[in-house]
Amino acid sequence: MVEVAIVMGSDSDLNVMRAAGDFLKDMGVEYEYNIISAHREPDIFFAWARDLKKRGIKTVIAGAGKAAHLPGMCAALTPIPVIGVPIKTSDLGGVDSLYSIVQMPGGIPVATVAINGAKNAGILATKILALSNEELFDKLEKFSDGMAKEVEAKDKRLKDVGVDTFLKG
Amino acid sequence: MVEVAIVMGSDSDLNVMRAAGDFLKDMGVEYEYNIISAHREPDIFFAWARDLKKRGIKTVIAGAGKAAHLPGMCAALTPIPVIGVPIKTSDLGGVDSLYSIVQMPGGIPVATVAINGAKNAGILATKILALSNEELFDKLEKFSDGMAKEVEAKDKRLKDVGVDTFLKG
Amino acid sequence: MVEVAIVMGSDSDLNVMRAAGDFLKDMGVEYEYNIISAHREPDIFFAWARDLKKRGIKTVIAGAGKAAHLPGMCAALTPIPVIGVPIKTSDLGGVDSLYSIVQMPGGIPVATVAINGAKNAGILATKILALSNEELFDKLEKFSDGMAKEVEAKDKRLKDVGVDTFLKG
Amino acid sequence: MVEVAIVMGSDSDLNVMRAAGDFLKDMGVEYEYNIISAHREPDIFFAWARDLKKRGIKTVIAGAGKAAHLPGMCAALTPIPVIGVPIKTSDLGGVDSLYSIVQMPGGIPVATVAINGAKNAGILATKILALSNEELFDKLEKFSDGMAKEVEAKDKRLKDVGVDTFLKG
Amino acid sequence: MVEVAIVMGSDSDLNVMRAAGDFLKDMGVEYEYNIISAHREPDIFFAWARDLKKRGIKTVIAGAGKAAHLPGMCAALTPIPVIGVPIKTSDLGGVDSLYSIVQMPGGIPVATVAINGAKNAGILATKILALSNEELFDKLEKFSDGMAKEVEAKDKRLKDVGVDTFLKG
Amino acid sequence: MVEVAIVMGSDSDLNVMRAAGDFLKDMGVEYEYNIISAHREPDIFFAWARDLKKRGIKTVIAGAGKAAHLPGMCAALTPIPVIGVPIKTSDLGGVDSLYSIVQMPGGIPVATVAINGAKNAGILATKILALSNEELFDKLEKFSDGMAKEVEAKDKRLKDVGVDTFLKG
Amino acid sequence: MVEVAIVMGSDSDLNVMRAAGDFLKDMGVEYEYNIISAHREPDIFFAWARDLKKRGIKTVIAGAGKAAHLPGMCAALTPIPVIGVPIKTSDLGGVDSLYSIVQMPGGIPVATVAINGAKNAGILATKILALSNEELFDKLEKFSDGMAKEVEAKDKRLKDVGVDTFLKG
Amino acid sequence: MVEVAIVMGSDSDLNVMRAAGDFLKDMGVEYEYNIISAHREPDIFFAWARDLKKRGIKTVIAGAGKAAHLPGMCAALTPIPVIGVPIKTSDLGGVDSLYSIVQMPGGIPVATVAINGAKNAGILATKILALSNEELFDKLEKFSDGMAKEVEAKDKRLKDVGVDTFLKG
Repeated sequence: MVEVAIVMGSDSDLNVMRAAGDFLKDMGVEYEYNIISAHREPDIFFAWARDLKKRGIKTVIAGAGKAAHLPGMCAALTPIPVIGVPIKTSDLGGVDSLYSIVQMPGGIPVATVAINGAKNAGILATKILALSNEELFDKLEKFSDGMAKEVEAKDKRLKDVGVDTFLKG
Repeated sequence: MVEVAIVMGSDSDLNVMRAAGDFLKDMGVEYEYNIISAHREPDIFFAWARDLKKRGIKTVIAGAGKAAHLPGMCAALTPIPVIGVPIKTSDLGGVDSLYSIVQMPGGIPVATVAINGAKNAGILATKILALSNEELFDKLEKFSDGMAKEVEAKDKRLKDVGVDTFLKG
Repeated sequence: MVEVAIVMGSDSDLNVMRAAGDFLKDMGVEYEYNIISAHREPDIFFAWARDLKKRGIKTVIAGAGKAAHLPGMCAALTPIPVIGVPIKTSDLGGVDSLYSIVQMPGGIPVATVAINGAKNAGILATKILALSNEELFDKLEKFSDGMAKEVEAKDKRLKDVGVDTFLKG
Repeated sequence: MVEVAIVMGSDSDLNVMRAAGDFLKDMGVEYEYNIISAHREPDIFFAWARDLKKRGIKTVIAGAGKAAHLPGMCAALTPIPVIGVPIKTSDLGGVDSLYSIVQMPGGIPVATVAINGAKNAGILATKILALSNEELFDKLEKFSDGMAKEVEAKDKRLKDVGVDTFLKG
Repeated sequence: MVEVAIVMGSDSDLNVMRAAGDFLKDMGVEYEYNIISAHREPDIFFAWARDLKKRGIKTVIAGAGKAAHLPGMCAALTPIPVIGVPIKTSDLGGVDSLYSIVQMPGGIPVATVAINGAKNAGILATKILALSNEELFDKLEKFSDGMAKEVEAKDKRLKDVGVDTFLKG
Repeated sequence: MVEVAIVMGSDSDLNVMRAAGDFLKDMGVEYEYNIISAHREPDIFFAWARDLKKRGIKTVIAGAGKAAHLPGMCAALTPIPVIGVPIKTSDLGGVDSLYSIVQMPGGIPVATVAINGAKNAGILATKILALSNEELFDKLEKFSDGMAKEVEAKDKRLKDVGVDTFLKG
Repeated sequence: MVEVAIVMGSDSDLNVMRAAGDFLKDMGVEYEYNIISAHREPDIFFAWARDLKKRGIKTVIAGAGKAAHLPGMCAALTPIPVIGVPIKTSDLGGVDSLYSIVQMPGGIPVATVAINGAKNAGILATKILALSNEELFDKLEKFSDGMAKEVEAKDKRLKDVGVDTFLKG
Repeated sequence: MVEVAIVMGSDSDLNVMRAAGDFLKDMGVEYEYNIISAHREPDIFFAWARDLKKRGIKTVIAGAGKAAHLPGMCAALTPIPVIGVPIKTSDLGGVDSLYSIVQMPGGIPVATVAINGAKNAGILATKILALSNEELFDKLEKFSDGMAKEVEAKDKRLKDVGVDTFLKG
C-alpha cells in the first residue's frame, strides 16, 4: 500500500523531486508521484489533499518553488505530516521558496528540508514511518553505515594517493 | 453594493489592513472586512473565494504575513484581480511575506504592494474601479492634488520657519 | 483601440517583456510596446505618461531592472493602474528591481508581479479589463481551464509511463 | 512514557521553546525538557542523543539560535525524526539560525519549522505520533476545529461591531 | 549664493537629512532645504530639478526611503552631481532605499552614501565644491584634524582612566 | 594634466573598470589607470593616496570587490572626492563589495555607484569636473542627448518592425 | 608584557568590545585597549599597526562596524594574527560589518568571529597564545568545564522545579 | 611532525580546500588532509577531534558548506584554534555556510575566513604558528613582499603597454 505521496505543482520540479522517490524505493517504502497544482487546479488539489488520510497515506512530500504554497496548503488540508522541499529558483536561489514553505503561521507546520533537498525529504519520511516499523530502522541504520563507510573510504584513498591523484578521479 | 473585499487571515493584521478600508471609505467605495484563514479554515476560505465574483465583488485586497498564502490562493480561486499586502514580520521584517506573495508562478498573478502598504492597496483598488467609473477618477485626482498641496505646504513652512522650528512641530 | 501600454526603458528587457504582449494577443486585447526611458529621456517619458489616460489606455505594464524607477514614476503621472515587472539582474538576481518597484511610498501604488513575471502582468491586466468586459472573463476562464488540463495531462502521463520515461521527454 | 524530547542548548531559549511542551501537554503527549549544549558539553550531548531511541523517545524537538548545530548534530546521532526550531536572533533576525538548521547536507534531514515556531514543532511531533495513535488524530482534529472556530468568531465579531470597536478590544 | 540644494520627498526625513545642512553650515557653504516629492508632485519636481543648474546650484543632496526614486530622477533631470542618501526603513532596514538609489542604470549616476549618511553627504558635497575653492579644502583639513584629535583624546582618556570609569561617562 | 585617477587593487578588475576610462576619454578628460592594492602594498598605497591632491588629481575612481577597503581608505587619505565602484563577486553577487564601500562611517564619505557601475563612475567624475569647466557640461549634454536619441530610435524601430523582427536583431 | 592588543575605531564600540578584555583578564593574559581609527587618523593607525610585532604583541582583536576596514587594514600591516569582531549595526543588523571583515581577498586573512562576538575573540586569542603556553590550555580547559557545569546545573534545576518555576527565575 | 590538520566533510570540497594545503607546503609547514564528516560518521569525527591536541596538531582548518557544522563542532571538541572555511553553495552562494560557521555562540569561537577562502585559512594558520617560530615570520614576510611586487609589476606593465594591450594578456 502506498504510504508516501510525493507531490509537486509542475513537472519541471520532477528532476529534483525524484531523489525522494528513489530513496524510498531503496528502503522498500511504497510511494506515488503526483503532479497537482494548488494554484492551477485548486479543486483537484483540495479533493486530493482532503483524501490523503483516508487512502492510508502516512506522509506527504511536497516540492514547490517561488511563492511555494503547495506544502502549506497541503498541511492545512490533511492531519498527516507534510514535508516541504523548497525548489531552487533562477533569480533568488530558492530563498523565496524556502521562506514560503518554512515560515508557516502557528497551527499549520510544514517539516521543511534544504533547498532542493528531496533526498533528505525521502529520508525524513522513512524516519517517520520507521517509528512503527522496526525493520525500516534497520534499513536506515544500514544506509547510515553505508554513508559512513563511503566517507571513510574516501579519506583512506586520499591519504593513500595524495591530493593530486585523488582530484584526477 | 460591496465592490472591494478586504480579507486577512488573522485579526492581528487588522490594525495594518484598516488603512485600505479607510481610503476606500474616503473615496465612497463600498467594501467589507473579512477575517478568513486559508490555513485554518480552508473550506470556508475556498467557498468564500469561489463566490466572490458572483457576489459582485470587483477586487480583493488580501493581507498576510510570513508564509503568506492567502493572496495567492485567493487569486487561484477567483478571476477578479487580487491585491496582496505583505505584512511586516518581527523576525525577517516582512521579506518572507513579500516573497510569498509576489513570487507567484506563471498563470496566477497577485498585484503586490509594499510591506504594510494597505493604504496603497486601497488606492490601487480604486484606480481599478475608476476604469469604469469616471467619477472615481475625479476623486483620485482630488486625492492626488491634496497630496501635492500637503507637500507644498510643508516645503513652504520649512522655508518660512527654518529647520529648527519646523522640527519642533 | 489600444487598451494596454507595455513600456520598458531598454530594449534589453524586450525578451522578457514580450510574454505580456503575447498573452494579451491570445486574449484579443489590443496593446502596444514602448521603449521609453524615465532616466534617459525624462521629458518624452513625462509627456507620454501624462497622456496615457487621454489616449484611452486602461492599464500600463512597466518593466524595469536595477534601480527600477519607471513603474513608480509612471504611477505618479497617470491615474490608471500601473503593473510593475521587476527584471532579473545579473548581480543581485532582481531583488534590487523588486524593492525599487514594490516598496512605493504611501499614495502611489504599483501593482508588482514576480521577478521576470511579464506573463503574469499580462494576465493581471486582462483581469482588470475583464471587470467591464464579461467576454474577457470567459477567455480567462478558458485559459485557467487550459492550465488545469495541462497539469492533469502531465500527472496522468507520469502515472502511465513512470518517472524514468517521463523525464526522457 | 516520554515520547517527545524537547532540547535546547541554553535556558535563554526556554521562553520560546515552552510553546512546544505546552501544546504536547494539551494533546496528552508525554514529553521532557532538556537543556543540553552540543557545543559546551559535547560528551553529554553525544551520549544523550545516542540513547534517545533506546529510551523509547519517538521524536526530538531541538531549538537553537545563531550557528545552530544542535538539531543537525542530533539528527546525525539518532535515527528518530528531529524537528528543528530556529531561534530568532537580535542581529540577523534568525536567518542565521534558519540556514544553520534547514540547509542540512544530503543524508541527515532536520524537519525545520518557522523561526521561533516552537508551537508548530509541537504540532508536527503530534502529527508524527498520531500516525500510530488514532486517538491523537482525533485530538488534532479537535484542535484544528478550534482554530477554525476562533477565526470564524473573530470574523463574526468584526462584522457585528465594526473595525473601530473591534480594534479597541 | 546657494550652492547646495538639499531635497527630500517627505518632512519625515528631515530629522535625518538636517545633518547634511548642519555640516554645510559649519563649512560656511550656502545651502537650502526643499521638501519636494517626485511621486506626489511630479510637475513641481520636474520644473525644480530642470532649473537647478540655471540657479547656480552646484550639487544636490537628495534623501529618500523605500522605493527611493527622488535621487535618480533628479540625476536624470540635471547635469550637476546628485548625492543620494538612502533613508533607513522600519521593515527592511533601508536596504530597499539603498538598492533603489545606488543601482542606477548606465548613463545616470547617483553618488550614494551610507544608509542615513546625511552628514557624509554634506562632507562629500563640500569636497566637490572645494575643488574650485582652496579655502574649503583648508576647512575640510581642519575638520579632519578635529576628528583625529577627538579619537586621540578618547584613546588617551581610556588609557588614563580604564575601561570601567570610561564607560561610566 | 591628469585630472582623474582610476585605481583598483587587482588587474582582474580592469575589464570592468576600463568603462570609466573609456568614458573619460570620450569626454576629453585626462585620466590614468593604477593597479595599487591597499592590502598587499599598504605603504605604496598610502604614499600614493596622500600625494593625489598635490599631483593635481581632482577625483579618484576606486574599484574593489569583496571586503572592498580601497575606496574607503583612499577617502581617508585624501581630501578630494572618491568614487567607489563595487565589483561583482561570484558568491555574493557583489553585495559584500557594495556594503564595504557604501556603508562608510561618519566623516569619510565614498560616492558609491552601482555594482560594476564603472561607466557611471566616469560620468559622475565628469559631472564633478564640469562644475568648473562649462565646456564639459556641453559634452555631458551631448552625451545625454545621444542616449535619449538612441532610445527613441529603438522605440521607433520596434514600432516599425514589430517585436518578432526586432528581437531577431 | 602586553600580548593582546584590542583596538576599535570608536569608543561607541567599547561596550561590546570589553567582553574580549574581560575574558583575557580572567585568563591572566595581559592586554591593552586602543581607540584608533583607520579612517579618521590613518597615519597614527598605520604607525601603530606597523609597530605591533616589535612591541611583542602576539595577536590583535579589532572591532569595527558598517564598512569595517580596521581589522583588514590591520592584517595588511602586521604579520601577527588579527581577529575581527563585526559590530552590530542599527540598520543592517551587522551584515555590513560582517561582509566587510570576513570577505578579505586572498593573501590577507582576518580571523572573523560572530557579530558582537567580542568574548569569543578573547577566547580565540587565548587559544592562539596557549599553543606556546601549556598553563593557558589548563585555564581554557577549566573555563570549558565551567561552561559545561553551568549548563548541567541549569538542566538539573529545570528538571527539579519545572518550566514555570524555572522561568520565574 | 604534522602541525595543521585540514579537514572537510566531503571530497567535493577538496578542490577548494587544497589551496590551504598548497600554501602550507610553500611555507614548509607540515599538514595533513582528512575527509571526515561530523554528520555521517559522528563517532569517528568525535574521536578524531578529541585526539588532535594529543597528536601535536596546533591548528585545524575545517571547510564545510550549507548547514556547516564541522568547524563549530570541531571547536567544541578541541582546545586548539579552529579556522573555518565556508564553502560556496550553488543556491545561496555560501551565505548559509558563512552564517553556520561564523555565528558561533559565546564560548566556542571559530576563526572564519571568506567564502572559499582556503588559501587565507592556510595563511592564517601560518601566522598562528609563526608566533613561536620566527623563521616562519620571515617566510610570511617574503610571501607578503612577493604579493606586493606582483601588484607593482602589473601596475608598471599596465602603464607601459596601456589598457588594450594589457587586457589582451
